[in-house]
Amino acid sequence: MRRGVAILGSTGSIGTATLRVIARHADKFRVVALTAFENTALLQQQADSVRPAYIGIVNPNRDSGPSWATGSDCLVTAATRPDVDIVVNAIVGAAGLQATIAALRSGKRVALANKESLVMGGELVLRASAEGGGEIVPVDSEHSAILQCIGTRPLSEVSRVILTASGGPFRDWRADRIARATVADALNHPTWRMGRKITVDSATLVNKALEVIEAHYLFGLAYDQIDVVVHPQSVVHSFVEFVDGSVLAQIGLPNMELPILYALAHPDRVVDPATRPFDPTAASPLTFEQVDPDRFPALALGIQAGLRGGCGPVVFNAANEAAVCLFLAGAIGFAEIPRAIESTLAVMTGLPSQSMPDLAAADEAARANVRTLYQR
Amino acid sequence: MRRGVAILGSTGSIGTATLRVIARHADKFRVVALTAFENTALLQQQADSVRPAYIGIVNPNRDSGPSWATGSDCLVTAATRPDVDIVVNAIVGAAGLQATIAALRSGKRVALANKESLVMGGELVLRASAEGGGEIVPVDSEHSAILQCIGTRPLSEVSRVILTASGGPFRDWRADRIARATVADALNHPTWRMGRKITVDSATLVNKALEVIEAHYLFGLAYDQIDVVVHPQSVVHSFVEFVDGSVLAQIGLPNMELPILYALAHPDRVVDPATRPFDPTAASPLTFEQVDPDRFPALALGIQAGLRGGCGPVVFNAANEAAVCLFLAGAIGFAEIPRAIESTLAVMTGLPSQSMPDLAAADEAARANVRTLYQR
Repeated sequence: MRRGVAILGSTGSIGTATLRVIARHADKFRVVALTAFENTALLQQQADSVRPAYIGIVNPNRDSGPSWATGSDCLVTAATRPDVDIVVNAIVGAAGLQATIAALRSGKRVALANKESLVMGGELVLRASAEGGGEIVPVDSEHSAILQCIGTRPLSEVSRVILTASGGPFRDWRADRIARATVADALNHPTWRMGRKITVDSATLVNKALEVIEAHYLFGLAYDQIDVVVHPQSVVHSFVEFVDGSVLAQIGLPNMELPILYALAHPDRVVDPATRPFDPTAASPLTFEQVDPDRFPALALGIQAGLRGGCGPVVFNAANEAAVCLFLAGAIGFAEIPRAIESTLAVMTGLPSQSMPDLAAADEAARANVRTLYQR
Repeated sequence: MRRGVAILGSTGSIGTATLRVIARHADKFRVVALTAFENTALLQQQADSVRPAYIGIVNPNRDSGPSWATGSDCLVTAATRPDVDIVVNAIVGAAGLQATIAALRSGKRVALANKESLVMGGELVLRASAEGGGEIVPVDSEHSAILQCIGTRPLSEVSRVILTASGGPFRDWRADRIARATVADALNHPTWRMGRKITVDSATLVNKALEVIEAHYLFGLAYDQIDVVVHPQSVVHSFVEFVDGSVLAQIGLPNMELPILYALAHPDRVVDPATRPFDPTAASPLTFEQVDPDRFPALALGIQAGLRGGCGPVVFNAANEAAVCLFLAGAIGFAEIPRAIESTLAVMTGLPSQSMPDLAAADEAARANVRTLYQR
């Protein structure tokens, strides 16, 4: 029986990659629901091609299809349909959290590309999973790598994970040059092609901090069981160290279609005609470096926020989003991004534990604090 | 309940390492039988320490204990005792085959370090396993790596394995210099400390050819699904490529205690206090090179012997053993080892299928052929 898939955020890069993967594996998966934010033209094209039972658009315009559901409720509706087995959550931003929780409460598998689900609401997400019987399978290449290395072994056998980081475009830049980096510099990522915001996050290593927080919730690991190492070639996607001292690593070219397919098929592996054989001699040498905490202070800030618990990660994430927005608009320099995060975390003491209203309030307060910092 | 372990070849390097591992995990395993070839003094020490129910010595002398079993029958007796759950077969040479077969027929787990079991009698060993319900868990670091990467997934999901080879002491030597290599040169292995014969086999890459043949039988892979890559650091112990294009690698310092522990505990992993955390930056860079078939012709010869099937691997193995013996005695040069193997495989056509008498005859004929080649 083919498993029904809902793709939330189908017009983004993960969404379109998911459609390509499912097209190659139409014997195993069928798209039953598609939702997008506002790209009606591409959503119409996708709908014509896969003919899903449900189409939703969050922000409709006059080109929306007549039978389409509209508004942000369509995400939860799509995620909880009885004909949906797997929800691919490729929504960008905080809007993804509610859909993740609803899907897990309905017992669905969530193939999770929406970082905010775990970063903002990790505790809520885990509770929803426990209560509803749904399971999270990560789509991020690093977390997919960790899951693939763990396989079906119990998490109690994992002693440590080591997330790899490309190091971003400023890996070998001196601190003073990083401080003067332009938007174009920050968007010039060496190995992965991604959206603008996440590319800046890779340059600051904020993205890696968010991934550490995700790993904490996904795999039930303490923060001191999660290390980060710079690996410029982006070939090893992460390491898992087991209690017997053995280490497994997952390796592959930087291409999101593999973790997407794995998230759909887990724990099975299905023959994929799109693969090319791995050639270790072409990938050689594989190098690994320590993260320099002085040039990339955002990583430690994110881990500190995670250790504070409650809404700490929410504040970290929101302060970063606000700062990146200002950086991309040319209003602040690159070095201001970690500074804005640090000062926001410093002023927001007594972070409440996670609840939907508290999350929203902490998120808004952090953004407001960053805007105030740079008001002229 | 603690699992009973028989250690065949307890006084060798794998045997003594196994005793160290079991001493650290006495809550899970207990030694119920020890056998050795002729090192009575060390066997007595070991027996005093672990007090096994059964002690056997193949080649006894006046220092043997009064209650010890003697002669080569003790191997099969130890391997098939009712109180034995796991047989660690660390016997050197052809004598290990019968014990492996007997243990598998009795439904035991065989933690297999004896290469000859699969190289000489792969078909017989698989049949014994199928008939008796025993299972083979490899102790060789490369095959252990492959098993760890596969985990509990079906072999049908594996598309290819890539065995790593250190490249041995002559990795970057020119062909004419290799041809003049002395015994001391060949015994100077860059990464692993092992016995003399296996160290020479690492210099010729015969050892890697034997491992390819082992992998063929162990994992049911065709020879074109088994690649070899030179990896001078010996940190990545092998790669497994799956049908979805994902690659897993197992990583660790060159130390046999980890694969021994894994073979005992598989598929579980147990906390080992002897482990040190893996530091990818200390291991960096990891490099990979093609094997040069001109300088290391023995690898292709071994694969050809494997492809011929039947007693092909027996002839390859026996011709190599005879040639290495002559090389270590100073009777022939290093470059004669692959030449002796090649000419022996060339003259021994029409290799019979595997049966115990055929194996013994092919083994003896191959050795005789090599001796004849260099008779003065």
